[in-house]
Amino acid sequence: MQTQIDCFPCFLRQTIIALKQITDDPAVQEPVIREVISLIRDADTSRPPAYTTTFLHRLIRSRMGQDPFMHIKDVYNRLAMGLYPELKDRVRRSRDPLQTAARLAISGNVIDFGIFTSIDIENSIRQALEEHIAVDDYLSFRQDVAGAQEVLYLLDNAGEVVFDRLLIEELLRAGKKVKAVVKGSPVLNDVTASDATQAGLTDLCEIVDNGSDAVGTILEWTSPEFRSRYQSAELIISKGQGNFETLWGNGKETYFLFQSKCEVVSKELGLSPGSMLLKKS
Amino acid sequence: MQTQIDCFPCFLRQTIIALKQITDDPAVQEPVIREVISLIRDADTSRPPAYTTTFLHRLIRSRMGQDPFMHIKDVYNRLAMGLYPELKDRVRRSRDPLQTAARLAISGNVIDFGIFTSIDIENSIRQALEEHIAVDDYLSFRQDVAGAQEVLYLLDNAGEVVFDRLLIEELLRAGKKVKAVVKGSPVLNDVTASDATQAGLTDLCEIVDNGSDAVGTILEWTSPEFRSRYQSAELIISKGQGNFETLWGNGKETYFLFQSKCEVVSKELGLSPGSMLLKKS
Repeated sequence: MQTQIDCFPCFLRQTIIALKQITDDPAVQEPVIREVISLIRDADTSRPPAYTTTFLHRLIRSRMGQDPFMHIKDVYNRLAMGLYPELKDRVRRSRDPLQTAARLAISGNVIDFGIFTSIDIENSIRQALEEHIAVDDYLSFRQDVAGAQEVLYLLDNAGEVVFDRLLIEELLRAGKKVKAVVKGSPVLNDVTASDATQAGLTDLCEIVDNGSDAVGTILEWTSPEFRSRYQSAELIISKGQGNFETLWGNGKETYFLFQSKCEVVSKELGLSPGSMLLKKS
Repeated sequence: MQTQIDCFPCFLRQTIIALKQITDDPAVQEPVIREVISLIRDADTSRPPAYTTTFLHRLIRSRMGQDPFMHIKDVYNRLAMGLYPELKDRVRRSRDPLQTAARLAISGNVIDFGIFTSIDIENSIRQALEEHIAVDDYLSFRQDVAGAQEVLYLLDNAGEVVFDRLLIEELLRAGKKVKAVVKGSPVLNDVTASDATQAGLTDLCEIVDNGSDAVGTILEWTSPEFRSRYQSAELIISKGQGNFETLWGNGKETYFLFQSKCEVVSKELGLSPGSMLLKKS
């Protein structure tokens, strides 16, 4: 997916969201936003927007001397852990626990760097469980999961990772080996090793660090160890729009589970923003 | 009103809206948006956002060699003229025609550079006529109108100008002399002399050209003739958020009739976006 001109205002919106996590002081915010503006002026539009957002989040972390999302990630993980027992019960009681867990994993993708409200997540859960989703390759997903020994699971956001745990637990229950992939270091509110620990994943499955601080999965920037695991993976589950942006169309068979959050991606997919997808590559 | 960091993404959104009026070709759009990005990097945040938007719209017109809003302004004027007979009838039949006309003038401010749909405008009309508006200094407005001989009426957008005609007609019916102010040359979808003609204003009252292509009314950039009329005006009616941004707090007694469209202005006013105001300075 290439960068569109509509991505440019969104780069600045993301910058403001990140800065506001740390300070409301315009005297601190302004010089950073002006540096980001210089950076996006030269954005390479032949690449996915995740390239530019990776650069801008690096710049913000460097100028602010801290990870803007550290606190909010902890809040999201705790809130989601509070929902876990009830969600686990829903999976257990359902007619098709794998499908219910997959749908809940998609619903958890509503947890992004905006404000997490219980209304948003409950609405997202209701929508995922009670309505048709826009793209639903579940039958093929179930079949491919049944045939696989091992699953490489690319995690996305903090908080959301608790919803992913439900799906990972179903995969484990079906006898699959699961490797859950986290970011090598902080970027946005993406899952790193400590978030995976907070969500209780560390005791369940192997955690693989991708060696990168990029938004999504920009393969050339990941570690050689991760790339070799990725290339040899039997079945890949990819969470979130960032991973979709950066991995879609690379020829590797993957199931993309996400909500199409922005106008640009939604337009590429021919869907309305907010659509839920379980999409086979 | 000073420029806030939240204005920066909005500068780029406005740029994209303008460019898309002319072309969907990224090869044409991209170089212009990169030039606009250079321009906004150096935005003077001690001034209202209207300064920066004036510069960026000048740049877009210059690079594209045309006024991006010429066509859509004509469409808006025609659509609004189609609504005029019914709206005029509503004013005539109402208990307080001046108030109804003022409310309709505010409702017409929903016509901005986005997409004009009949649903938006009908919803806006219903809201203005049937609900309380967020700020309502009408009693003082009626009294000041009664005491004035002459009104300087700062117009805002094409299409909206037809709604202003209703209020101007009520002022004329009450024996006031009205001078309707238009932009000196095109900027955004703001009213110029030709739009005033299209809305039928030219036969009703004097049309005053402010000599400027600025968003809102940036007094130092208007013509000396306009400034002298402004400074000596007995009663000023100012339409739209741009005029509010640029004229609020300058000590000149003015009634601001508009909808608070953006988060930044709404926050300054302590209102939710979309609020309607008839606000005395």
